[in-house]
Amino acid sequence: MANLTSWQALVEDKRRRQKESIPKEWLELIIAPPPDVLNVTKVPKECKLLSAKELEITETSNVDVILQKLASSEWSSVEVTTAFYKRAIIAQQVVNCLTEIFVERALARAAELDAHLAKTGKVVGPLHGLPISLKDQLCVKGLETTMGYVSWIGKYADRNAVLVDILYECGAVPFVRTNIPQTLMWPETFNNVFGRTSNPYNRALTSGGSSGGEGALIALKGSPLGIGSDIGGSVRIPSAFCGLYGLRPSYNRVPYEGAVNSLEGQDSVVSVFGPMSNSLSGIKTFMKAVVGSKPWTKDPMAIRKKWDENEYSLVEHGGGKQLCFAFLTDDGLVTPHPPIIRALEMTKNALVADGHKVVDWVPLKHREIYENLAGIWGAGASEDYAVTTASTGEPILASMSFESDQVDEAPFLPSKGISAYELWQLHKRKRELRKEYLDHWEKTVDITGTGRPVDAIICPVAPYAAPPHGKNRSANFTMVWNGLDYPACVFPVTQVIETIDVKKPPHQFLSETDKTTYELYDPTTFNNAPVALQLVGRTLEEEAVIGMTEVVDAALRQMFMKYHKGSW
Amino acid sequence: MANLTSWQALVEDKRRRQKESIPKEWLELIIAPPPDVLNVTKVPKECKLLSAKELEITETSNVDVILQKLASSEWSSVEVTTAFYKRAIIAQQVVNCLTEIFVERALARAAELDAHLAKTGKVVGPLHGLPISLKDQLCVKGLETTMGYVSWIGKYADRNAVLVDILYECGAVPFVRTNIPQTLMWPETFNNVFGRTSNPYNRALTSGGSSGGEGALIALKGSPLGIGSDIGGSVRIPSAFCGLYGLRPSYNRVPYEGAVNSLEGQDSVVSVFGPMSNSLSGIKTFMKAVVGSKPWTKDPMAIRKKWDENEYSLVEHGGGKQLCFAFLTDDGLVTPHPPIIRALEMTKNALVADGHKVVDWVPLKHREIYENLAGIWGAGASEDYAVTTASTGEPILASMSFESDQVDEAPFLPSKGISAYELWQLHKRKRELRKEYLDHWEKTVDITGTGRPVDAIICPVAPYAAPPHGKNRSANFTMVWNGLDYPACVFPVTQVIETIDVKKPPHQFLSETDKTTYELYDPTTFNNAPVALQLVGRTLEEEAVIGMTEVVDAALRQMFMKYHKGSW
Repeated sequence: MANLTSWQALVEDKRRRQKESIPKEWLELIIAPPPDVLNVTKVPKECKLLSAKELEITETSNVDVILQKLASSEWSSVEVTTAFYKRAIIAQQVVNCLTEIFVERALARAAELDAHLAKTGKVVGPLHGLPISLKDQLCVKGLETTMGYVSWIGKYADRNAVLVDILYECGAVPFVRTNIPQTLMWPETFNNVFGRTSNPYNRALTSGGSSGGEGALIALKGSPLGIGSDIGGSVRIPSAFCGLYGLRPSYNRVPYEGAVNSLEGQDSVVSVFGPMSNSLSGIKTFMKAVVGSKPWTKDPMAIRKKWDENEYSLVEHGGGKQLCFAFLTDDGLVTPHPPIIRALEMTKNALVADGHKVVDWVPLKHREIYENLAGIWGAGASEDYAVTTASTGEPILASMSFESDQVDEAPFLPSKGISAYELWQLHKRKRELRKEYLDHWEKTVDITGTGRPVDAIICPVAPYAAPPHGKNRSANFTMVWNGLDYPACVFPVTQVIETIDVKKPPHQFLSETDKTTYELYDPTTFNNAPVALQLVGRTLEEEAVIGMTEVVDAALRQMFMKYHKGSW
Repeated sequence: MANLTSWQALVEDKRRRQKESIPKEWLELIIAPPPDVLNVTKVPKECKLLSAKELEITETSNVDVILQKLASSEWSSVEVTTAFYKRAIIAQQVVNCLTEIFVERALARAAELDAHLAKTGKVVGPLHGLPISLKDQLCVKGLETTMGYVSWIGKYADRNAVLVDILYECGAVPFVRTNIPQTLMWPETFNNVFGRTSNPYNRALTSGGSSGGEGALIALKGSPLGIGSDIGGSVRIPSAFCGLYGLRPSYNRVPYEGAVNSLEGQDSVVSVFGPMSNSLSGIKTFMKAVVGSKPWTKDPMAIRKKWDENEYSLVEHGGGKQLCFAFLTDDGLVTPHPPIIRALEMTKNALVADGHKVVDWVPLKHREIYENLAGIWGAGASEDYAVTTASTGEPILASMSFESDQVDEAPFLPSKGISAYELWQLHKRKRELRKEYLDHWEKTVDITGTGRPVDAIICPVAPYAAPPHGKNRSANFTMVWNGLDYPACVFPVTQVIETIDVKKPPHQFLSETDKTTYELYDPTTFNNAPVALQLVGRTLEEEAVIGMTEVVDAALRQMFMKYHKGSW
């Protein structure tokens, strides 16, 4: 407590500097609605900052279309970067999603790329001219990297993270960094330095976390492509809560080297970087570009597995002609809310209509997997957080709710540390659970009728759409796949519709959490919140996971075209 | 100490049962020389157990030749298995290299394979009919798995290790299991259950460890192909000390699931299984067969990376036409003995004569890497050993020398345990060291003149050839590559020649160990011991490491053909 005044002064100074990094002429043109306006998704279109062309650019969700227009010089990188930058600043004013803002640097880079293209007629790489937003872990040389810790204010990176280097080599334009929760180990987004990020569809709801700044920013089309990280759901939860596509790749498929992180040295349930975007093309293009850059020559942990076009074409999945999807509705512990169930049914129907098969997925020991992961993370977490925050004495948050003193609400507060030998026993148990789950999956060859085991699992990302701030108490539906190291891609399906997604009568509760979750639901509270699901594949099968998500996405679009006459 | 009598009684019973598992009619025909005969490599040829055809079969080092003769039915699997089995029993009588002996089971399997081939005209898989020896970690359903622990006597496996399943599917005939040191964490081979394995070239010398049973067995041609494991050099040290080829693959390239191990849950410096053989074809054929069987469908940790024929053809290494090899002579701490230096010079000359380039390799922070690994292993090792041996109270060995009470000689005795958080700090430091080493390697692009970084490092496996029992006090030259996760392939070069490899005058010692190592050398003691080196490549580049070792091996053979008129 000795440094109480001092950490608050540091925050004040940092926030002042952050505000000063926004061009004044932009700020002047932004009309932010008052706090009681909850849905802010229309603000970018309505406020005066964006020109018609800038609106056209930023409303282009398909990343490949943006890249084509950049490559053909129809749009310059300066134009595209400026458009997304302005829109990112609008997002910042309404949902507080940014951390580092560096307009000059980004525009200088964009100008360089434009000059290169004009001079040589060639793009620098597969991401030429594309602005990309980065979670506040991805160090950029010369920029502060606080990761939401007051104690890290003033810590300037002396080199780029490897992934940032690769993005530059691919021709991208890193242009903003985005907000996260303190310690990163929360499925919401709030820290002592930058405060809270809200959900653009309803600011009373969380944007999810830990990559919640990315989620809110991209939902407002303030970035065409962002990089989040995921140790227990941190790419997928904000992707789902904000209605985006988002991929959690397998351990070490995307380079992590040179980024800052929590719980460093915890190498068992590994955090991974993954793309978030309004288009699946954004997900694929990012993965192909990054894997294609041979990240293993720069990151010793990155796996030497080339991008496999055969896997993407689903050669090992019967060419994608008749896939068998297994649907997991509940994990045996918590029943999802009505809109989530509806999304599962919609997806099932769309796939069946498209000629695919669907079966039920039987969850195996999910509770034990959750407990195992919590044990591994908790093994040294207290000490990690204490060491990290020691220099300023900033408080370690116990809740993501507005009343941050509700310690009893903290689901992720770490337990007392354990010994290295005890940790090894948890690792051993984790491996056993992974083996059981692998065998469980392989055994589905008996029920699919395709001659193959189930091609993918489709399941909720959370038992609810974005809940009110402080109410996202569990990441169970995502962290199970981190423990098993299965890649998973989030795809948007629908939104909560108050009139359709009515509350159901109470059921026989599966657990205490099931009861709390049931009680949390109220159609009005959640109205309009995006609803997404995740498609889960096999370890290091990113290519096929993307390929299969394209199949699901196309089936859903086809169904919408048929029944809703093209309204998507 | 309470169970002292009891653990010794268990050992006596186990040894009796082991002896009874050897067919009496074989034993009767084996004439084992008296203990003071040190070189026993000629015993298999001289003793009466093997027929002329069995000698022909077992003297065939090239595994692909054996496989061709099996596939064409020129030799039956029963014939080949019987021949190697008999020779393995001879080896057992002279160097004590076996643990589990299961003649009936192996011959029944061989007969099945012969029947299948006769009936269908087709082989079962790429290893059809080939007897394969297994380190005493690889569980075979229904067999005891003691791993050298008295406390595990009577522990029968209820399923095969995944690798054993894969070998069966590939048509192999697992036929013996082989000796190891207690805890596996020694570079020699001695345990309370089965005793000591000696080096067939000189029984006063160690066969190395921990896969020392394999080393001695294969050197006596009692097995065409064996599986060892390597966490710090345990495939490579016995391969080198016994004059074999041996590959340490990268973490999780070869499935480990279902095998027993020491320090389970220690997932940072991972133990790996790798092949040992008298031929490089044995190494390649094993790797291609195992990787080709999609081990990731059976082992959740196995990496989904297909066998890459382009990598094997050295496409990323200029097609193998002009490779640049970096030679590491000493690690900055210990100077190798004269025969090792001579082997390095021979190899260098052979490669230059063959049109390749050679440069010096500058070691980077090897001492810190050794210390980091020792810290990680030691983090929970004491508790692991104590828990494992608790049920019988068998003593934990403090030395591999004949006088096992020389506690002060124990280089690998673990320290007191540490906390999970402290372990994470070691993991973090390990990752930093790996990054530094990767950059160090990439930077060699400046000096090779090939446009590529150094293609491979060639270096000693140990600073000496096989030393006397109890004197192999360090695994530094191997464990550095385990820490960095670089695959490494051992290849034999020469033998110690008393008259050539004379002792040199003392040099300025690099360390206390350098002095001890210098003092250990005496040409007579080491005379005739095999001398091998290792070729080290990049993480998950097994294919290229094998391809490049073939280049080196061919260059050495060419040199021998030229200067020694074909005497190899």
